[in-house]
Amino acid sequence: MSDDPILLTPGPLTTHPDTRRAMLRDWGSRDPAFIALTAELRKRLLRVANGEATHVAVPLQGSGTFIVEAAIATLVGPGQKLLVLANGAYGERMVAIARRMGRDVEALRWPEDRPVEPARVAEALRADPAVTHVALVHCETTTGILNPLAETAAVVAEAGRHFLLDAMSSFGALEIDLTAVPVAAVLASSNKCLEGVPGIGFALIEQAVLAAAEGNSPSTSLDLHAQWRGFGKDGQWRFTPPVQVVAALVEALRRLEAEGGPAARRARYQENFDTLWAGMRRLGFELYLDEAVQAPIIATFRMPADGRLEFRRFYDALAARGFLIYPGKLTQAESFRIGCIGAIGRAEFERLLRAVEEVLGKG
Amino acid sequence: MSDDPILLTPGPLTTHPDTRRAMLRDWGSRDPAFIALTAELRKRLLRVANGEATHVAVPLQGSGTFIVEAAIATLVGPGQKLLVLANGAYGERMVAIARRMGRDVEALRWPEDRPVEPARVAEALRADPAVTHVALVHCETTTGILNPLAETAAVVAEAGRHFLLDAMSSFGALEIDLTAVPVAAVLASSNKCLEGVPGIGFALIEQAVLAAAEGNSPSTSLDLHAQWRGFGKDGQWRFTPPVQVVAALVEALRRLEAEGGPAARRARYQENFDTLWAGMRRLGFELYLDEAVQAPIIATFRMPADGRLEFRRFYDALAARGFLIYPGKLTQAESFRIGCIGAIGRAEFERLLRAVEEVLGKG
Repeated sequence: MSDDPILLTPGPLTTHPDTRRAMLRDWGSRDPAFIALTAELRKRLLRVANGEATHVAVPLQGSGTFIVEAAIATLVGPGQKLLVLANGAYGERMVAIARRMGRDVEALRWPEDRPVEPARVAEALRADPAVTHVALVHCETTTGILNPLAETAAVVAEAGRHFLLDAMSSFGALEIDLTAVPVAAVLASSNKCLEGVPGIGFALIEQAVLAAAEGNSPSTSLDLHAQWRGFGKDGQWRFTPPVQVVAALVEALRRLEAEGGPAARRARYQENFDTLWAGMRRLGFELYLDEAVQAPIIATFRMPADGRLEFRRFYDALAARGFLIYPGKLTQAESFRIGCIGAIGRAEFERLLRAVEEVLGKG
Repeated sequence: MSDDPILLTPGPLTTHPDTRRAMLRDWGSRDPAFIALTAELRKRLLRVANGEATHVAVPLQGSGTFIVEAAIATLVGPGQKLLVLANGAYGERMVAIARRMGRDVEALRWPEDRPVEPARVAEALRADPAVTHVALVHCETTTGILNPLAETAAVVAEAGRHFLLDAMSSFGALEIDLTAVPVAAVLASSNKCLEGVPGIGFALIEQAVLAAAEGNSPSTSLDLHAQWRGFGKDGQWRFTPPVQVVAALVEALRRLEAEGGPAARRARYQENFDTLWAGMRRLGFELYLDEAVQAPIIATFRMPADGRLEFRRFYDALAARGFLIYPGKLTQAESFRIGCIGAIGRAEFERLLRAVEEVLGKG
C-alpha cells in the first residue's frame, strides 16, 4: 500500500487504509445486517449537516452527476423553472442536465474567478416570478472558488423559492448547518471531503419538499422520491447498491466523527492548503483566485507565463515521484490544480513541495 | 473473512478474496494507470461474448437497472417503439422504465413458469410494423427460467428489428456468442456471473447501432452514446467512476479467463445447481419450474404446502448457520430462492444442505 500514489485531485482521492479495508467483506443487500448499515449511513449523513429534524437522506448509486440529475428530475417538476447560478463547469453542467431532460432552466452567470453575488440573485428573482428553484455550487471545483452560501440561501428564501445546493466539493469540510440556513436539498458524493471511495451520491432533502415530488422524475433509476419511499417501506435500496462502497462510506463517516466533525476536517484541509500555497508561492507560482474567495479544497495555479512548464511533463515527473495532480479546467487561462482533500496532511504537502522543487530543477 | 456468510442470492454474491483485495488501492480516475485499467475492462467484457469485431463495451456507474434504462434511453429513439417479451419482474421493469421516460412501449406476456415463444414473437412483429426494438430477459431472476436466446434473436433479425438482451443473470456463465447470434445490445452488471462487486453495469452494443444513437437519451448521466464518445476521446469515464469497483471487476474477469471462460463457469454453476436440487428434493422440496426450462443460476422452491416453514424463520435459521438465501418474487405462489452463482462450489452446497436438514429437524 505504501507505494500507492498520493492523489491530489478533487476525487477520487487518497482514502484511509481502514476505509478501504471496510470493502473486504461481502454483504447480502437485502440482509438485516446491510439494512442496518444503510440506516447508519443515512443517519450519519444527516448529522454532518444538522439535518435530522427537517431533512431525509437519500443515497443513490452513481457519481456526483447522477445525484445532481436525480435531484433536478425529482424536485423541479414539469412546469416549474430552475435558475442556476453559474461561475464554473459544474454550474454549466446543471444547466445542460436540466435542458436535456426538457426542464425549463436559465443561467445567471459570473466569471470563473468571481463569486456569485446575492444582490444580483435577488434582482433576478424579482424580475422572473416563474423561477421556482435556484441552484448554487457551494465550492466550484473548476477553480476552487467558494460561493456565499448563507447570503444566497437567505435571498432565495426571502423570495419564496426553493434552494438547491451542490455541495459536492464541500460537504464534510465546509460548514453546512441546516438548522440555520434554508436549503431544500444538499447534494454531495461519497468520494470528496467525506473521504469515502466513489460509487454513491446522496441528497439531504427537506422532507416536506420531497413528499410533494412524487412522479416528477422521468427516470426510474434517478427518482429520489421513489428511492426514499423504498427506504421507508423496508429499509432497502430499490436497486442493487454497491455494498462495499456503502461499507467504506460508513467507515469514513465514523472516522469523520472521530476526527472532530467538519470543523476539524476543515482545519486540516486549511493547513494543507496553507502549506501548499506558501510553498508554491516560494517556488514562484501564482494562485489563480484571490485568496479571499479561495476555499481550502482545491487550488488552481497558473501555468508560468515563461513557458518553462508543460502540463503533461510536469504531471509525469510528479507522478514518478508518487504524486498525482490534476489538469486545469479553466476556459480562459492555462492552469493546473492541486487538491487539498483526502486522508493526507501537512507531511504529504511538504513532500510534494520538495518534489515540485526537484522537478523545477531548483532542488 | 472466514466468518462471512455465504450469499445464495442473485447478487451481490460471494466473491473471491482476491477480487475484494483488488479494492485496497486508490486510483486517480484520470491517471494513465486507470485509463489502462478501463481499456482492459472494456476489452475483456467484449471477449466474454466474442464481440470484439462488431460491438463496443460501454460500462456505466450504477446497478443493473441503470444500464437497462440507459440502453433504452439511448437506443430506442423518440418515435420508435419497444416490444418487451415479459415473463417476470425484470421484463415488467423494462416496460415501466420505457413508459416513465415517455417511450412507446408494449409488452408481450407469458406466465412466469413459461418461456418466451419465438413463434408468438414472430406473429406479433408481423402484426405491428411500428415495433423497432425487441427486448428479452435471457434468464429471468424472478423464477430462474431460461428464455430461448438464439431462436428469439433469429425471429427478430428476420423481421428486421433490433434485439436488446438483458443478460444480467446470465452474462459470463450462459453462452452468448455475438458472432453467431444477432444482438444489437447485451446488458449486464458487475456483480452476477462475472463475480465482481456491485457498482457498475455495462452494455455491449453493435457499433453501427450506437453510432446512430446520438442525442436520443433525455438523460445526461444515462447516455451510452456520450459515454462511448468520451471513451473514444481520451479513454476516460465522463463522470467519476467507482475506481475500486472497476479494479475488482477487472480482477474478476481475469479470474473468469483463468477458470476457463463462460463454459467452465457454467459447468461449475450446473454442478452447484445439481447438488442443490438433488439435496432439496431428498428433503421434500419442490422446484417451481420444470427442469427443462430451469437455468443453473437461481432456483425457486415452493414453500411446503403444509405450512411447516415460514420464510422469515427459515431465513434467520439459515443465516445463523452462515447462509443467506433469498425471498421469492412470484406473483402467484409462496416461494423462496437459492442462488447457484458466485465464488462457491459443491462443498458450500453440501454444507448448506446439512444446514437445511438441521433446520427442518431431520438432522
